[in-house]
Amino acid sequence: MRGGASREAAFDSPSATRPRLSGAMAPPLPSPSMAPPGLIHSAPGLLDTCALPQPPAAATMSGPAAETPSAIQICRIMRPDDANVAGNVHGGTVLKMIEEAGAIISTRHCNSQNGERCVAALARVERTDFLSPMCIGEVAHVSAEITYTSKHSVEVQVHVMSENILTGTKKLTNKATLWYVPLSLKNVDKVLEVPPVVYSRQEQEEEGRKRYEAQKLERMETKWRNGDIIQPVLNPEPNTVSYSQSSLIHLVGPSDCTLHGFVHGGVTMKLMDEVAGIVAARHCKTNIVTASVDAINFHDKIRKGCVITISGRMTFTSNKSMEIEVLVDADPVVNNFVKRYRAASAFFTYVSLSPEGKSLPVPQLVPETEDEKKRFEEGKGRYLQMKAKRQGQAETQA
Amino acid sequence: MRGGASREAAFDSPSATRPRLSGAMAPPLPSPSMAPPGLIHSAPGLLDTCALPQPPAAATMSGPAAETPSAIQICRIMRPDDANVAGNVHGGTVLKMIEEAGAIISTRHCNSQNGERCVAALARVERTDFLSPMCIGEVAHVSAEITYTSKHSVEVQVHVMSENILTGTKKLTNKATLWYVPLSLKNVDKVLEVPPVVYSRQEQEEEGRKRYEAQKLERMETKWRNGDIIQPVLNPEPNTVSYSQSSLIHLVGPSDCTLHGFVHGGVTMKLMDEVAGIVAARHCKTNIVTASVDAINFHDKIRKGCVITISGRMTFTSNKSMEIEVLVDADPVVNNFVKRYRAASAFFTYVSLSPEGKSLPVPQLVPETEDEKKRFEEGKGRYLQMKAKRQGQAETQA
Amino acid sequence: MRGGASREAAFDSPSATRPRLSGAMAPPLPSPSMAPPGLIHSAPGLLDTCALPQPPAAATMSGPAAETPSAIQICRIMRPDDANVAGNVHGGTVLKMIEEAGAIISTRHCNSQNGERCVAALARVERTDFLSPMCIGEVAHVSAEITYTSKHSVEVQVHVMSENILTGTKKLTNKATLWYVPLSLKNVDKVLEVPPVVYSRQEQEEEGRKRYEAQKLERMETKWRNGDIIQPVLNPEPNTVSYSQSSLIHLVGPSDCTLHGFVHGGVTMKLMDEVAGIVAARHCKTNIVTASVDAINFHDKIRKGCVITISGRMTFTSNKSMEIEVLVDADPVVNNFVKRYRAASAFFTYVSLSPEGKSLPVPQLVPETEDEKKRFEEGKGRYLQMKAKRQGQAETQA
Repeated sequence: MRGGASREAAFDSPSATRPRLSGAMAPPLPSPSMAPPGLIHSAPGLLDTCALPQPPAAATMSGPAAETPSAIQICRIMRPDDANVAGNVHGGTVLKMIEEAGAIISTRHCNSQNGERCVAALARVERTDFLSPMCIGEVAHVSAEITYTSKHSVEVQVHVMSENILTGTKKLTNKATLWYVPLSLKNVDKVLEVPPVVYSRQEQEEEGRKRYEAQKLERMETKWRNGDIIQPVLNPEPNTVSYSQSSLIHLVGPSDCTLHGFVHGGVTMKLMDEVAGIVAARHCKTNIVTASVDAINFHDKIRKGCVITISGRMTFTSNKSMEIEVLVDADPVVNNFVKRYRAASAFFTYVSLSPEGKSLPVPQLVPETEDEKKRFEEGKGRYLQMKAKRQGQAETQA
Repeated sequence: MRGGASREAAFDSPSATRPRLSGAMAPPLPSPSMAPPGLIHSAPGLLDTCALPQPPAAATMSGPAAETPSAIQICRIMRPDDANVAGNVHGGTVLKMIEEAGAIISTRHCNSQNGERCVAALARVERTDFLSPMCIGEVAHVSAEITYTSKHSVEVQVHVMSENILTGTKKLTNKATLWYVPLSLKNVDKVLEVPPVVYSRQEQEEEGRKRYEAQKLERMETKWRNGDIIQPVLNPEPNTVSYSQSSLIHLVGPSDCTLHGFVHGGVTMKLMDEVAGIVAARHCKTNIVTASVDAINFHDKIRKGCVITISGRMTFTSNKSMEIEVLVDADPVVNNFVKRYRAASAFFTYVSLSPEGKSLPVPQLVPETEDEKKRFEEGKGRYLQMKAKRQGQAETQA
Repeated sequence: MRGGASREAAFDSPSATRPRLSGAMAPPLPSPSMAPPGLIHSAPGLLDTCALPQPPAAATMSGPAAETPSAIQICRIMRPDDANVAGNVHGGTVLKMIEEAGAIISTRHCNSQNGERCVAALARVERTDFLSPMCIGEVAHVSAEITYTSKHSVEVQVHVMSENILTGTKKLTNKATLWYVPLSLKNVDKVLEVPPVVYSRQEQEEEGRKRYEAQKLERMETKWRNGDIIQPVLNPEPNTVSYSQSSLIHLVGPSDCTLHGFVHGGVTMKLMDEVAGIVAARHCKTNIVTASVDAINFHDKIRKGCVITISGRMTFTSNKSMEIEVLVDADPVVNNFVKRYRAASAFFTYVSLSPEGKSLPVPQLVPETEDEKKRFEEGKGRYLQMKAKRQGQAETQA
């Protein structure tokens, strides 16, 4: 029963301005305000002033200076609709939960000073690997923590665990890093300043700055492929790019959006995963699951009422994996003055699973056009680079 | 990096059997397994063995003996579909979240020993008051904790807070107490034994036992009103019972159900609140919100594929509140051998709000038949009893 | 209040086998506004004044012999996600509710004798007109009644009313007629026999048989257009067919399906309306609403796990309306032995509304290819035929 105390202090202190990241040295502060529900129950007069339900990772926050919660946890039972026919939860469901946690924590943080009100918009998600599949009936636990702030952006690191509540087994599903930018509610084209976090160790800030610079560089390098459109082909041969390419349109509704009428990044990622999954299933005609998602840059906001087109095409296959490129275009149908624009793009990697859950060989992709061959080689490059990186990591750990 | 320690110990220890309820003074246990995400991030090789995302209220667990988390926290942004036209979140949305938290924690607890696998089914929800309305865009925090176990049942206490992430304001929305019963997965008609919780204070067990006995008595007293059916009436006069009575049917689909094909209690409660809300709105033609829900007993399970009929009728009005009785009947359409049966019933209290959120006077209900007059008097009795109880509480606190 | 009584009697009597339809022997109807659907149907001029969402079975069922409920009512508040940005409920939402009511009532009826268990699958929906738009916050009342049975099919007639529960205003939204076929749960390729309904008036059976024969003839005449595929075009000109044509893919999930793994007809219709709406919005860039849906034939079942492609293209424009053809193709992705097949097709008519809800002129469609010109002429034929029919009705009523 410690840790909770500083947490409560944080919530109760309206003048709180600088959340503090975890550190080793906060003292244990037993506090009557952290009484279990049973106690609270017997003191109904205190209710209105009583405890906030504990932001979990707040346990990692510390010290008397710790004031705004810089962590949050979301959990939810996985339902049939969250999964494919074989019972494996869609990667897109996980991405959507991750983004919801990130949006809550970064919007909360960016409004923690008495400045202009804002909403945190997703700007980028770093590459993430899905380490083990999640199943219907399991509980997904998503913990998010603010790990770095630059002048105009917030870095959120997220862990997802799956818990089988019948057996008690827990597994790490994936980790993700998201970048948010605070947009003014008065003028959504204006980016506000982010209140700084307090780092408990000096190195944390330096490491964060390195990650910030690295992603900034990478974002600038992103090819804008704006003119690149996925064209259907009549009667394509199996195993060609045209054979499995797919696209869907979605009319953006209220539940897809923040209060201020912009599509949640998580909604977009879920649709991207859906299209990528259909491309993969069409290609190999087996049960497929998301293995990883490349860094995703969100080039531009998508407003309520837009029609978004999400298109996917296979770019590369290794022996046991498939890379699918997904493009998101937004079309403000009822607004003649804004043209259709590229809102996001990413590469998803899928693997094929046998009914027993073993990974299966994948039919080799047959690139036909010059462009397809070029994209295949680029995909091979990404694949080999990632493989080398993983081997390097394995060696340094051995 | 404290607080997490005991929690992690709990998760990492597979032999854990007796969760421990909170106590004030557990010592800080710094542990390398609780490195903040930033650290974990830099040591990916360790991931598979690393931390479970912290079950929040685990902060209330204590000591090395504390092993299974007996607490959980769910949070979610409230979306347009969670609310009425005026932007107030439906009581039913809150009840559904509460029940999801309760189902996770009690199913987890009942499977914490190496016995027969089971699923925790909702048997009863104690009366709950909605203290302050929640709005679209706010984050609902639901914290649930196991507070008592009898041989065959689990008591879960839940707190719901609403957080405005733009202003930082937090309010207690309501508290609830739920009772679950573990049903064997092999034979869902068999009730299993519940592993006992460890109480940190002797009084906790005694207080829990009193609540257990009280609810048991009350459940037995519940009139089964099975033959009582809500009859439509042609051309009813305004302000009569017939004028506002309503009913809806719902075909139970996969996402309404647990893995084992039974409707989640929370799904049923959400539909009950929906019907009650329609009855209330028809009666007073204003913006209405749920003020409280009487204890709900779940008489019998509802299976996937059933058609459920939920009917509501107004029973009583005070100056500023309306009481609506809601009946739930289940009909296993494709099974001729099981007759339609009463699955649950409850009383909901609604208030009428002005556009500014002030409570408005309510048109008086005009009971016509003898039965309606009898139900009106019974409702008046419940109303006066509750009023007296609240005054008593206020006085003891003064 | 008669009628209701017999309905309840019906519910309480488990030995019921032959539901009885309304009619002649029913006691005098106290109010012309409560005419049974059959009557209303023959007097469309009265529709707008016809008040009350029918306590469905009530008015139509009669006498002591009435035993199994042959009627049902669903009601639900319309939520933000049910509507477009302007607040008008999607025609697809209404179609989905209609089909849910029809599926429940016909599945219940087909299982009312002690024979083989079955599920009723949607085979056809007759043309329906949307008479008045519904808005968020209104309550949709869907009343369905079995009006005819052939040896292997069930006809269900449905009325949808919208009720503004704040003002008490009720409006007829639309009426629909659906045909269901009972498929054995043991072998879904086997069509079972339908228990006959009892007609209270001889004419009811005869009229039903005429409708049955007419739809049978029309179904056989439906062109199979299986090879007809909607091809995208690069850089199309505004107002051409290519400019607005759209298609979406959807991976069939558990909530889209009946208990037995087939897509609910209502789910398909909702997606069809979504695509048609996007085509219409792209063409005229204004707020658009569904005005009517042509008869839809469901050629074949769609199984869980299929990917369905729904494509729409504009075929015809009159001064104030647009006709859009929608094609549904199912692709059992992970099953190499079943090829992609045409599962359904239909014509939707949309109108464009000003912000005040007045119908606006529509930009004229510019057909380019020979096929497009042919389809335009066919659409014009359908439009003129329907116009003539409506004028005929108006005159006979005058």
